[in-house]
Amino acid sequence: MFDVDTLIQTALKEDIGWRDITTETCVPADKKITGAFIAKEPMVICGLFLLPRVFDALDKSVTVTFRCQDGDALPAGTAIAGVSGPARAILTGERTALNLLQRLTGIATRTRGAVAAAEGTRAKICDTRKTTPGLRELEKYAVRVGGGTNHRMGLSDGVLIKDNHIAAAGGITKAVEAARKRVPHTLKIEVETTTLDEVREALDAGADIIMLDNMDNPQMAEAVRLIGGRAVTEASGNMGEKSLREAAETGVDLISVGALTHSVRAADISLRFTPMPKTL
Amino acid sequence: MFDVDTLIQTALKEDIGWRDITTETCVPADKKITGAFIAKEPMVICGLFLLPRVFDALDKSVTVTFRCQDGDALPAGTAIAGVSGPARAILTGERTALNLLQRLTGIATRTRGAVAAAEGTRAKICDTRKTTPGLRELEKYAVRVGGGTNHRMGLSDGVLIKDNHIAAAGGITKAVEAARKRVPHTLKIEVETTTLDEVREALDAGADIIMLDNMDNPQMAEAVRLIGGRAVTEASGNMGEKSLREAAETGVDLISVGALTHSVRAADISLRFTPMPKTL
Amino acid sequence: MFDVDTLIQTALKEDIGWRDITTETCVPADKKITGAFIAKEPMVICGLFLLPRVFDALDKSVTVTFRCQDGDALPAGTAIAGVSGPARAILTGERTALNLLQRLTGIATRTRGAVAAAEGTRAKICDTRKTTPGLRELEKYAVRVGGGTNHRMGLSDGVLIKDNHIAAAGGITKAVEAARKRVPHTLKIEVETTTLDEVREALDAGADIIMLDNMDNPQMAEAVRLIGGRAVTEASGNMGEKSLREAAETGVDLISVGALTHSVRAADISLRFTPMPKTL
Amino acid sequence: MFDVDTLIQTALKEDIGWRDITTETCVPADKKITGAFIAKEPMVICGLFLLPRVFDALDKSVTVTFRCQDGDALPAGTAIAGVSGPARAILTGERTALNLLQRLTGIATRTRGAVAAAEGTRAKICDTRKTTPGLRELEKYAVRVGGGTNHRMGLSDGVLIKDNHIAAAGGITKAVEAARKRVPHTLKIEVETTTLDEVREALDAGADIIMLDNMDNPQMAEAVRLIGGRAVTEASGNMGEKSLREAAETGVDLISVGALTHSVRAADISLRFTPMPKTL
Amino acid sequence: MFDVDTLIQTALKEDIGWRDITTETCVPADKKITGAFIAKEPMVICGLFLLPRVFDALDKSVTVTFRCQDGDALPAGTAIAGVSGPARAILTGERTALNLLQRLTGIATRTRGAVAAAEGTRAKICDTRKTTPGLRELEKYAVRVGGGTNHRMGLSDGVLIKDNHIAAAGGITKAVEAARKRVPHTLKIEVETTTLDEVREALDAGADIIMLDNMDNPQMAEAVRLIGGRAVTEASGNMGEKSLREAAETGVDLISVGALTHSVRAADISLRFTPMPKTL
Amino acid sequence: MFDVDTLIQTALKEDIGWRDITTETCVPADKKITGAFIAKEPMVICGLFLLPRVFDALDKSVTVTFRCQDGDALPAGTAIAGVSGPARAILTGERTALNLLQRLTGIATRTRGAVAAAEGTRAKICDTRKTTPGLRELEKYAVRVGGGTNHRMGLSDGVLIKDNHIAAAGGITKAVEAARKRVPHTLKIEVETTTLDEVREALDAGADIIMLDNMDNPQMAEAVRLIGGRAVTEASGNMGEKSLREAAETGVDLISVGALTHSVRAADISLRFTPMPKTL
Repeated sequence: MFDVDTLIQTALKEDIGWRDITTETCVPADKKITGAFIAKEPMVICGLFLLPRVFDALDKSVTVTFRCQDGDALPAGTAIAGVSGPARAILTGERTALNLLQRLTGIATRTRGAVAAAEGTRAKICDTRKTTPGLRELEKYAVRVGGGTNHRMGLSDGVLIKDNHIAAAGGITKAVEAARKRVPHTLKIEVETTTLDEVREALDAGADIIMLDNMDNPQMAEAVRLIGGRAVTEASGNMGEKSLREAAETGVDLISVGALTHSVRAADISLRFTPMPKTL
Repeated sequence: MFDVDTLIQTALKEDIGWRDITTETCVPADKKITGAFIAKEPMVICGLFLLPRVFDALDKSVTVTFRCQDGDALPAGTAIAGVSGPARAILTGERTALNLLQRLTGIATRTRGAVAAAEGTRAKICDTRKTTPGLRELEKYAVRVGGGTNHRMGLSDGVLIKDNHIAAAGGITKAVEAARKRVPHTLKIEVETTTLDEVREALDAGADIIMLDNMDNPQMAEAVRLIGGRAVTEASGNMGEKSLREAAETGVDLISVGALTHSVRAADISLRFTPMPKTL
Repeated sequence: MFDVDTLIQTALKEDIGWRDITTETCVPADKKITGAFIAKEPMVICGLFLLPRVFDALDKSVTVTFRCQDGDALPAGTAIAGVSGPARAILTGERTALNLLQRLTGIATRTRGAVAAAEGTRAKICDTRKTTPGLRELEKYAVRVGGGTNHRMGLSDGVLIKDNHIAAAGGITKAVEAARKRVPHTLKIEVETTTLDEVREALDAGADIIMLDNMDNPQMAEAVRLIGGRAVTEASGNMGEKSLREAAETGVDLISVGALTHSVRAADISLRFTPMPKTL
Repeated sequence: MFDVDTLIQTALKEDIGWRDITTETCVPADKKITGAFIAKEPMVICGLFLLPRVFDALDKSVTVTFRCQDGDALPAGTAIAGVSGPARAILTGERTALNLLQRLTGIATRTRGAVAAAEGTRAKICDTRKTTPGLRELEKYAVRVGGGTNHRMGLSDGVLIKDNHIAAAGGITKAVEAARKRVPHTLKIEVETTTLDEVREALDAGADIIMLDNMDNPQMAEAVRLIGGRAVTEASGNMGEKSLREAAETGVDLISVGALTHSVRAADISLRFTPMPKTL
Repeated sequence: MFDVDTLIQTALKEDIGWRDITTETCVPADKKITGAFIAKEPMVICGLFLLPRVFDALDKSVTVTFRCQDGDALPAGTAIAGVSGPARAILTGERTALNLLQRLTGIATRTRGAVAAAEGTRAKICDTRKTTPGLRELEKYAVRVGGGTNHRMGLSDGVLIKDNHIAAAGGITKAVEAARKRVPHTLKIEVETTTLDEVREALDAGADIIMLDNMDNPQMAEAVRLIGGRAVTEASGNMGEKSLREAAETGVDLISVGALTHSVRAADISLRFTPMPKTL
Repeated sequence: MFDVDTLIQTALKEDIGWRDITTETCVPADKKITGAFIAKEPMVICGLFLLPRVFDALDKSVTVTFRCQDGDALPAGTAIAGVSGPARAILTGERTALNLLQRLTGIATRTRGAVAAAEGTRAKICDTRKTTPGLRELEKYAVRVGGGTNHRMGLSDGVLIKDNHIAAAGGITKAVEAARKRVPHTLKIEVETTTLDEVREALDAGADIIMLDNMDNPQMAEAVRLIGGRAVTEASGNMGEKSLREAAETGVDLISVGALTHSVRAADISLRFTPMPKTL
């Protein structure tokens, strides 16, 4: 989250362009306004810390007051945060603030649902690299807020040997050896497998993590037995929430779900202002 | 689309970080590979021009061959584009290319559905400012590719006077006057209304476009009659595809749909490689 | 004006380079100084808000006190703003502050003159895209401060169909149709014309704005009569202030003047310090 | 000139914004066009090398052919350079190319005039730091092309001790000493003087260059005699071209003229296209 | 290495500033030159791929021919690479190219020495985060070229629990538990220890890697025995090359050496030009 | 030093990447910590002003208290500066702060040694362009803090005519003439010479500074006599501290030493925290 202000600048510039021509012409510079962000449906809220940063970038005299915190499950109608200050800055920043907040809350809410679906099993829910370009850090944060765990952040902080790497290296064993020799000792090595034979080869090669890719549930259960705790197991492959429960019951350690971040439904949040008299 | 390479750089840096450690250790530098992007479900393809730019940023010797063009409605199983060249660059860029292509195709596909729902009416489908921070230009392009039209790109290239602007200005008439006096003569002035009285006031004030916000269909039909072509009419308010047809039949000129861009389902596309022998 | 600090950083870096070697070696770090920006000729002041931002970027303890506001017509000798604080920061920032202030004031002053020349007619004075690369937003602001109005800010927030677009599209009618079908409904469509026949065609095609380019005054007057209020009219073509009055009297709605921004005479402003004794 | 492409990107983004909506809707993607940049008045051309760079940034298939070179004095009507290629890129880049070319040519032309005014004297014409923020490098290049010489580029590559530095240091002698001790040995030390007493003190302190600021001509002539070649002399203070000749005849080595860059009149250049038939 | 061109741009801008004033005034624009980079002492060469990129950024017609490859141990006098093309670009880029090449070669050479010192033991040599700000990626590459391995690249791709983390968490066991619960499953957990008791606690807590910090050799040997292969062992603490051999013989898996990157001696490399006749 | 915060941002991003995963998981957000930077060997401290800027970029509530100032010669064991505030920010910024402080202190310390070696002679010690890419400004500052003087900062603020420039220009005389005609009058002209004949030619050509490159000491002494104060003399060529004294005694004005910045040994500084109880 170190560099989130650069993203906020990008988002604001993209929306504001030269200037907010409507607000600038219709709203007096000294007009004050007070409002609240309202949850219009049940949700796991995420991204609150972005609100003051968005408005701060426009006018440091806007104040934001949190009424809940990231990770809270809110019923419809909850006031999430209050905002007050110069009307121009608040109206100009409203859309950018909402676009960020609604997306992250959508991710956290969906993740919470997936975590609930796996409750009582050993399976943790984790994300993938199928994130929105430019927003990965925030989206992976939303997965954590929703109760999920993160897979690697990108290509440099994890080793995941897939079918094409295996083919290029000349087999699982050679690929794992090649990686072991040259990657930092702080990283684990994960191998993608699609058959029990591949699982066995990965295990013998000393893989730290074995991904069970697009296997059916009996096959996954068999793989879990075969591995017997000698490597971490990760189930992968387009799963809805129903199939997710069944996958979780096979005994895998992790289930990675691309849809958490690649197919987000924005949570329904609006910014309601305390009414101003229509005639001043 | 002038500056799309900056976005691609951002996306690649975000994913690659220091380096693609798996590919670098497992795949020989001189290994070549050939593959194809495949549509795994029916879709309106969008974003093809990004593919060569993503791979170019990694290695100028990768070649991409288009097999269709943006806007084509593809059946499941269609080969979208071929890619061939150095295995390292292709494997490293694969996820970034897919993340962009799947999102834009998801938007174009959904927009095409909305356009179809309004077919035979005068209503055009248009987008909103509820886009993903950093991706607005591409997402609005996808709406056009899907057959929709664009609303204003941001706050500086259109005037949209909403309830809070109206309250701050002291009524619709004063707000329109204030805007008229100071905005460039190249821009139209749009006013948001929620009642027929407001529609009348906006019309008298000389609004070029009147937004009918969250009105029910009979009310919208009445507003359309009242306006009688003296201003462009835009229906707005969370609409699914069913309600969209009914709204379209009220005679409005435009229906703006936030979900086109704020709640995208990524289209299912994969990059399949022509098999390499597992042992070299 | 959202991103003006980036421009100020660019300007300061360009001037300071590594460091202000004279100030650093000759002026003690704890030396304080007080001065005032003085109008050395009559002017319409513009750009005051930039002064504190320039000095702030160097040292947050510099204070700037405004003695007038943007748009004020000042007689020669007026104190515009006071500045006091660390001598190093003030001496280092002086030139950058003046370079910006003198240019914007030059534009506002010249615009005020053009507006005065058209007084009593319906013609507004507006600017063009003939601005200094990197300074368009500020220069168009100066035009507004001088009493002029802005034409489109750039190529994406307005449609202006010129002779080459017309030729490429196959005539005025086809060009307007092509644009109407695909540009956002929030933008008006302007067509450049040079003959009365073209004016008629543009009018029939439904152009919202008709530019009368390099016409003589009788021809313009005829065009205005012909259009009869069915479209906005804009006079264009190198005009000095004398010819501007005569053009205004033809009844056009707008006169666009490139020289407002492409040929600026910097206003004569200096920063005078309250004398320090020559020997400390 | 190392980083000129960054400036060009800034200028293009500023003008294009999202996209050139007129060209995109009216001009077919495969349309080709041919044109020429024409000098519409006599001028010393400057900035030719920018033309291919501007169009290159939009479309690498545009070709530019130079018909003269920077520094050539052109009569009205001269074809400066030809351009041909995709109509969209050429029309989109036209304004940015002209804005740069007209400004630099304006500077070079004015500088050539000042140089001519001083012809036959020993006085060289040089520029100041009164340049347009963001364009200093290009504007100083235009001064060289016009036959002038450059003063220091900014605060880090030259020492110029002005009245306030002198006051802060406790006199000319102390200021020069302080600078001598700490500035790189590769830089000369210049002192601003306004009286003959100050000239004497600067000379005794070992100043390499002595600026004669706002002196009248007899005083300057006296100062030049007094200095007797032991330091370089620079005349400074708002000079028009008439007074410039007289100043030059006092025997000074340099005359610095702020107006060369702070009050530029854009040279009149247009891009004329070889006619396309109005109907395709 | 994905973004190395940004670093090269930074380095060139820093050195060139406005322009290479000497080359521009003394060397004709069409002058060609040929030269070779020469190793003036024995070295392990590193950074060759940067040479063409540096010159390319200045002039694409410069050609660089490699005569060896990264990692080669070169005797004094070896020609490393040839360069030929426009004299201006080569002279302007020379210093930047050398500054990078000499530093990376210095690191690779020193690493090779450390690796040789540990030869025959199981200890690998690895680097630390004590790198030059802005150059970490290149410096860690040079360590690999020298035969060392990389520790984590930064704070986000590895977990290293130090004394202050332990104190803050309430002991080693709690710290490891806290990390295990929340870090991605792809990362190993390393714990810093300074006593055998801490080693035991780290081992019991399930640390994947145990750092033996500033222990003497007998203590390290005892720790290695105690751990017995159940965790990776890393020796750490200012070691010269002599002490390094002895540390390696204690049986540790890794020795991390900060000096590889924080105290670099630039390798002695020069660019010698094929003589040009002094008079043309 | 104007833009040092950009470098600090680069350094922090490079080290932190996504986030400091160890600190985030092991250290509570509200934990406070107090510590001190300690000199672990004798050193000339340099870079103190960077400490608050590094921590400020992470958390504005961290406070840094200086206990000495840049340029102080500290004995081993000295407390340099105190730091206190949120544990997370301090632990996350520690390495970046140290990497900068240790490098600059290393340079200042070494420079002080070189200055001492030349004490009593007229020779000043100066630096070169052999600096670390991206850090030149800071490294040259450290040389000044150590008591040295700066050579030119880069290629645009000094003229240094080397052998290849001479060859390309057709001899020393022609090169100096070419430069004299076109470089700003504020810059001196330096010529590199390797023989007494070249010294004579440079002197006759009017060089302001003459570099004596790789001459032996008797030759240098002879050159100094020959020049007789008519130009500044600079000794250059790989010199250790012993040879430096002898070179200084030849009477040269300056000795430039590349190793001051190209072969830095980081000063040994650590950040020690006031002990926290291991169990909270």
